[in-house]
Amino acid sequence: MSRIDLQALAETVASPSVEARAEATRRQSLLTKPSGALGRLEELSIWLAGVQNLCPPRPIDRVTVVVFAGDHGVARNGVSAYPPEVTAQMVLNFLRGGAAVNALARLHGATVRVLDLAVDVDWEQLGTAVPGEVTAFKVRRSSDDLSVGPALSLEDATTAFEAGQAIANQEVDAGVDLLIPGDMGIGNTTSAATLTAVLTGNDVASVVGRGTGIDDATWMIKCAAVRDSARRGRAATHDMLELLATCGGADVAAMSGFLVQAAARRTPVLLDGVVSCAAALVAARISHRSREWWLAGHRSTEPAQAAALERLRLTPLIDFGLRLGEGTGALVALPVLRAAQATLSEMATFDEAEIAAPSAAE
Amino acid sequence: MSRIDLQALAETVASPSVEARAEATRRQSLLTKPSGALGRLEELSIWLAGVQNLCPPRPIDRVTVVVFAGDHGVARNGVSAYPPEVTAQMVLNFLRGGAAVNALARLHGATVRVLDLAVDVDWEQLGTAVPGEVTAFKVRRSSDDLSVGPALSLEDATTAFEAGQAIANQEVDAGVDLLIPGDMGIGNTTSAATLTAVLTGNDVASVVGRGTGIDDATWMIKCAAVRDSARRGRAATHDMLELLATCGGADVAAMSGFLVQAAARRTPVLLDGVVSCAAALVAARISHRSREWWLAGHRSTEPAQAAALERLRLTPLIDFGLRLGEGTGALVALPVLRAAQATLSEMATFDEAEIAAPSAAE
Repeated sequence: MSRIDLQALAETVASPSVEARAEATRRQSLLTKPSGALGRLEELSIWLAGVQNLCPPRPIDRVTVVVFAGDHGVARNGVSAYPPEVTAQMVLNFLRGGAAVNALARLHGATVRVLDLAVDVDWEQLGTAVPGEVTAFKVRRSSDDLSVGPALSLEDATTAFEAGQAIANQEVDAGVDLLIPGDMGIGNTTSAATLTAVLTGNDVASVVGRGTGIDDATWMIKCAAVRDSARRGRAATHDMLELLATCGGADVAAMSGFLVQAAARRTPVLLDGVVSCAAALVAARISHRSREWWLAGHRSTEPAQAAALERLRLTPLIDFGLRLGEGTGALVALPVLRAAQATLSEMATFDEAEIAAPSAAE
Repeated sequence: MSRIDLQALAETVASPSVEARAEATRRQSLLTKPSGALGRLEELSIWLAGVQNLCPPRPIDRVTVVVFAGDHGVARNGVSAYPPEVTAQMVLNFLRGGAAVNALARLHGATVRVLDLAVDVDWEQLGTAVPGEVTAFKVRRSSDDLSVGPALSLEDATTAFEAGQAIANQEVDAGVDLLIPGDMGIGNTTSAATLTAVLTGNDVASVVGRGTGIDDATWMIKCAAVRDSARRGRAATHDMLELLATCGGADVAAMSGFLVQAAARRTPVLLDGVVSCAAALVAARISHRSREWWLAGHRSTEPAQAAALERLRLTPLIDFGLRLGEGTGALVALPVLRAAQATLSEMATFDEAEIAAPSAAE
């Protein structure tokens, strides 16, 4: 038993407001457009009213992408097209604003918060100063190789999960309107595929993808790692912290805690790629109501993401064949949610515009 | 023969820059992400470099939605759930900023320009002052009922087509980065379905949709109208102005001229729903290169739009079940194009970020 009472945590997660949803549904029918003509934007606007408990919903101004960075020991086995050193190099790229997530966040007025949960680097030793807040929640240097044993001790998994909860609390307390979980870590799709295989019951080969773009030989190594870890993971599904210790990693464990806590704090989340969706599977297993606070930003090319979204019954907003992580897919989808907010909030009603009602019943 | 030499016009349309496309393709491979990881955003960024003849492409700041408003005599037969008066009422709603297109344009910093090409109203008589620029290109009050005869005289079709060209020229001269053709007109989907049936060769029943949300009886009336007009239209395909006169309408004819001229002026266009895609079919028949300057914003629920996009070999960016027109679908998709621009322009290269290259060939 870990020191967190997950059942008590689950009970802190409520459902979004039924009343605000009903009011939004009614308001949609009064706006100057044929009924249903805004298609899925109408559904999204109703969801938004529910999670904000406000109709019409307010603009989604304050958006934070939290990038959970961490290395995975399994990457030393060659499951990725990139060497593990790239995780730390990309953290520096995020901090300098040169990554895709930075470009997209600037475009959409979002904030990028990079957190080193388990990057395999001692920044001081490397001679590169990173701001203290980047390492404030660091659990350890790299998670262990999940293909040969647990990725983390139960103690470390618990610490990481609590770190994710604390991060969510900080963001909610700071007044964020929407959270996006981003990821960076060479090897993290191996962990995500393992968790997804365990929690969806899908075959290993059907959830293992090409990650950063691996060849057939590397894919087979990755499949073997997932198979061996998933075998241990299936014995740990009685306790999600045990499962995160067995098949996860500090970054994924933190993201899981982040997702449950965001839901407990009534804050909507736009999920990104395969890593955030694997963490979402864990979070939904802890509290099934938490998924009512999430939207799926996009469909990635990683098969585990499709399996996770199917299990979560979430339909992605966009489908552009992205497979970068970092929060990029969710950021590309963000304006859709803003469009749903703007139409429900700002459009005139038929009465206001003095427009004739339809001549035929619909 | 009309007074416009369409063949000479076609020759003014060139292809986007092959050199800028090649440079964008090369630059994509240097950015700090796995090759291809931005999926369709990469293709879009390359397209954008081509149409701007600039790599990296500049931001898409100045966007104008031109709403082509016009009534259609066929609407008097009951092909729509709304009475024809709604067209004029919606023009006023656009001018007051209360329509969906206004809410979305404000959100994305775009301009909405509403033009009455053939609204069945005399604004002075109605006692409602509209700004002079709204009626500057007005061709007539309503197009005629295309189910019983031509929608327009060849003279009026030519005037409307030239109006569309003049509107495109004004926008390009004012320095617009991207144009969106919007539509408003009770009955306009009947005209769009007819043009699409004629130009794609699809069966009438397979291209006639539910428009504003019509019932089965109304759908059958709409099918009969399209069938009768398409029969006359098939005899007019030797001359696109003849076809626009037979099955179009002043709004659709203007939009067709607008699309050809935008391409001639090397200005990219984001197509919207079924009306803009029908006009695009006409424009592409006039100059097949014009389609290289267009993207399909979204997939609407109107079957004629799917048929037109298939013929144009354009894949929509988003699919949200929208069926509102006005330019709304294209506006919802606009941020995707901006995301493509931002990533190609702003991301660091591997060299700049001093990041290790992939360890395996891809």
